[in-house]
Amino acid sequence: MPRGKSMNYEPCPVARSVDLVGDRWSLLIVRDAFDGTRRFGDFQRSLGVARNILSDRLRKLVDAGILVTQPASDGTAYQEYILTIRGENLFPVVVALRQWGELHLFARGERHSVLVNTHTGKPIPYMTPRASDGADLPPASTKVRKLS
Amino acid sequence: MPRGKSMNYEPCPVARSVDLVGDRWSLLIVRDAFDGTRRFGDFQRSLGVARNILSDRLRKLVDAGILVTQPASDGTAYQEYILTIRGENLFPVVVALRQWGELHLFARGERHSVLVNTHTGKPIPYMTPRASDGADLPPASTKVRKLS
Repeated sequence: MPRGKSMNYEPCPVARSVDLVGDRWSLLIVRDAFDGTRRFGDFQRSLGVARNILSDRLRKLVDAGILVTQPASDGTAYQEYILTIRGENLFPVVVALRQWGELHLFARGERHSVLVNTHTGKPIPYMTPRASDGADLPPASTKVRKLS
Repeated sequence: MPRGKSMNYEPCPVARSVDLVGDRWSLLIVRDAFDGTRRFGDFQRSLGVARNILSDRLRKLVDAGILVTQPASDGTAYQEYILTIRGENLFPVVVALRQWGELHLFARGERHSVLVNTHTGKPIPYMTPRASDGADLPPASTKVRKLS
């Protein structure tokens, strides 16, 4: 299933999303962009990724309308990569990955970075799908209605 | 950065999660598992993926404690792949990917599969990080507190 074909015909929103951001480096670039990283060299230092791979992923994220390039804010010749609205809307994806990692991939007492509410300084609450009355909605209370 | 090394030393929960599920096929296998797919052949038909790639990803998901194998529920010789609790807890990740796709990757009026509340039959509400008082928490109201 070539990417292009999948993008055009895939009726599942999960599959279309995964076509654009379903790889390790793209997800980590988006994570870093949320943390304020904007420049090629800064992404490279943060990720320890080869330049050609980073170039490729940044280009794909720009092509997908997730990042946009603009001249450096300090007037230097650097180019900066900024999240678009579409990119900003990936916030729940990054938070879900973070919270799953926190829950399952650290030993008891092992320290990790924490996403905090800047107003309170407290970690943000666990995010989960909810019904319209605010109740937790576990997977067993949902189903996918496919196209007929 | 080899996977093993990253897994051991990475203090960012997003990075640890992405090491385990940050690839197209793993995410789509988990999506299908939520939809009730359990058998190798059914995953293969759904995904259109080569057998060797599917084998590799299923093995990695079992090694990561996300899926567990068990004898077929109908007494046949098939093996079934079932989500563990750790796997079930990926539900917010799959929902976040789905909702981002719904929001940005379909043309107006273009139809797609829909995740509904089985009790009401209605689409589940948009999931977003929230403060403890229930207010939306946009990225700009959060920051990552790194390890000192």
